[in-house]
Amino acid sequence: MMDELKKWIPIIDREMFSFLPEKEPYKEFYELLKDYPSRGGKRLRPFLCLLACKAVGGDPMKALRTAASIEMFQSFALVHDDIEDGSEMRRGKPCLHRTHGVPIAVNVGDGLLITVFKMLSKNRELLGDDMTLKVMDKMFELYYKTVEGQSLDIYWVEKNVWSLNENDYFRMVTGKTGYYSGRSPIEVGAMIGGADEKTLKGLGAFGEKIAIAFQIQDDILNIEREEKDEHGYGKEKGGDILEGKRTLMIIHLLNSLSGEEKKMVKIILSKDRNQVTQSEVEHVISLMESKGSVEHARKISEKLVKEGKEHLNVLPDGKSKKIFLEIADFLIKRKY
Amino acid sequence: MMDELKKWIPIIDREMFSFLPEKEPYKEFYELLKDYPSRGGKRLRPFLCLLACKAVGGDPMKALRTAASIEMFQSFALVHDDIEDGSEMRRGKPCLHRTHGVPIAVNVGDGLLITVFKMLSKNRELLGDDMTLKVMDKMFELYYKTVEGQSLDIYWVEKNVWSLNENDYFRMVTGKTGYYSGRSPIEVGAMIGGADEKTLKGLGAFGEKIAIAFQIQDDILNIEREEKDEHGYGKEKGGDILEGKRTLMIIHLLNSLSGEEKKMVKIILSKDRNQVTQSEVEHVISLMESKGSVEHARKISEKLVKEGKEHLNVLPDGKSKKIFLEIADFLIKRKY
Repeated sequence: MMDELKKWIPIIDREMFSFLPEKEPYKEFYELLKDYPSRGGKRLRPFLCLLACKAVGGDPMKALRTAASIEMFQSFALVHDDIEDGSEMRRGKPCLHRTHGVPIAVNVGDGLLITVFKMLSKNRELLGDDMTLKVMDKMFELYYKTVEGQSLDIYWVEKNVWSLNENDYFRMVTGKTGYYSGRSPIEVGAMIGGADEKTLKGLGAFGEKIAIAFQIQDDILNIEREEKDEHGYGKEKGGDILEGKRTLMIIHLLNSLSGEEKKMVKIILSKDRNQVTQSEVEHVISLMESKGSVEHARKISEKLVKEGKEHLNVLPDGKSKKIFLEIADFLIKRKY
Repeated sequence: MMDELKKWIPIIDREMFSFLPEKEPYKEFYELLKDYPSRGGKRLRPFLCLLACKAVGGDPMKALRTAASIEMFQSFALVHDDIEDGSEMRRGKPCLHRTHGVPIAVNVGDGLLITVFKMLSKNRELLGDDMTLKVMDKMFELYYKTVEGQSLDIYWVEKNVWSLNENDYFRMVTGKTGYYSGRSPIEVGAMIGGADEKTLKGLGAFGEKIAIAFQIQDDILNIEREEKDEHGYGKEKGGDILEGKRTLMIIHLLNSLSGEEKKMVKIILSKDRNQVTQSEVEHVISLMESKGSVEHARKISEKLVKEGKEHLNVLPDGKSKKIFLEIADFLIKRKY
């Protein structure tokens, strides 16, 4: 699977950067549009899109522009999310709004989002008019889920909402992650490849489930000791606790506590990140372990992967199916 | 002309709001998407689009969704511009980022921009596939000019750039205003109406020139005494000076001054808005008057309107041409 992914990364990137040319006299602006796309990333979303197209018998080159547009959308979303979350670092470098200020970062994000749509409209050359417009329709699902999920996330943080149950969590994560990182890239790839409705929905369900499993696994890694990102940059241990992120583990923990103990955890989670001490982080992590929150999250993640794999029965046995299965296993076994 | 405009406003608004439904469970988010579109506005841009369609013999109802999408784009741009400029008020109410914070305002702007594209993709029902995609292509011109112009504007403010000449000014204003408020709405309306290339370009040139004239006139009104917006809200006299806006008059003034006098004006323009005194504002205004900057701007504005009108020779005499001529005159005679 890694060989296949590595083969595609330069092809995806070439397509993506071809829509970010240097344009005089706005060279500096267009340089900034390239900043986040140049910072790397696993390119798993576009890869899922290409793979789905191939898996249903289509030519993945037909899905290339759409796949690259998904990675471009990711860059847009990260630039604006980093502003919204007040983040400091992104892939080992300071966030764009830290280096260039919020006004420029807002405008650069807008430029990237406009470029996403430009790419989709230029699918015309590859796909013809009808499929070009169908692809757009499919992508709007993802775009609206992203801003809706983001609105929920910002709301929880700003209003300091902590009385959440697992339904709330899954509502948020289905939109922000399930569609975003799994269902939509796969469904649109399968659609371009000519999949029938049943295959498309089955692959979509696979994508949604493994994407959520991936997110839960990511949150578990965040509280473990030796986390590194894909470039080998160390990430702060327990950064999610510093940020007060609503993870499945945190929600499980809060619902397992009561009285003073619950109150204290909420206070830690609600503090500004630079006011949380390392011993407070360790305290919350040890509570999550003793109350079984980590184990609970790990089980749900594994269950999602198992269910996801079952949806792959819509595919015949073969190379594509094998790669999808490998991706599913990779997601929950990875250490970065 | 006003009768015709008034007739169209509710039709444009109904179309626009039909793309901003309340969607459970994200009701609060979708309510916020309606905030700026509900604050009113002249609706001149969509009106120009509809009028251009009609003027070349087309059915304006075919251009309605595109026209409404232009007004939606305006709401998107205002939400993000207000963040970028650190503005306080928008149409008599506090800006969205003042009432709900920057994170929510960034996300709401994104939701509006996504909705602009949704509207364009749903042109399919009205225009068929080919024209739907052609309209998108035309609109990308406008979208890129908007973010490019914005990048220049932010750059000038952040780097405190004041050594500008009229070429710099026209480069900025052509993108941010000429295309945005004039050329693009008119060209796309004419295209939907089936105009030939010559008519389309002639009408586009008319639109670009009167839009720039409109902006210059707006800047002149800003330093005159009794300015009110279209709702009768008073605007601060000389607000552009408080904000350090690069207007044609300011550029003319700086290029007419030297030594200590020039230095002092630059200092006033570079200050934070709440550190500028009323007597400093009055001082800059009186310099603009004595150095002929206001008169210079007025003459250029009138020249642009005159040149714009000449481009209307691509239209046969008739009601549409008459309305376009009335709009041109209205723009430079208006007092609000």
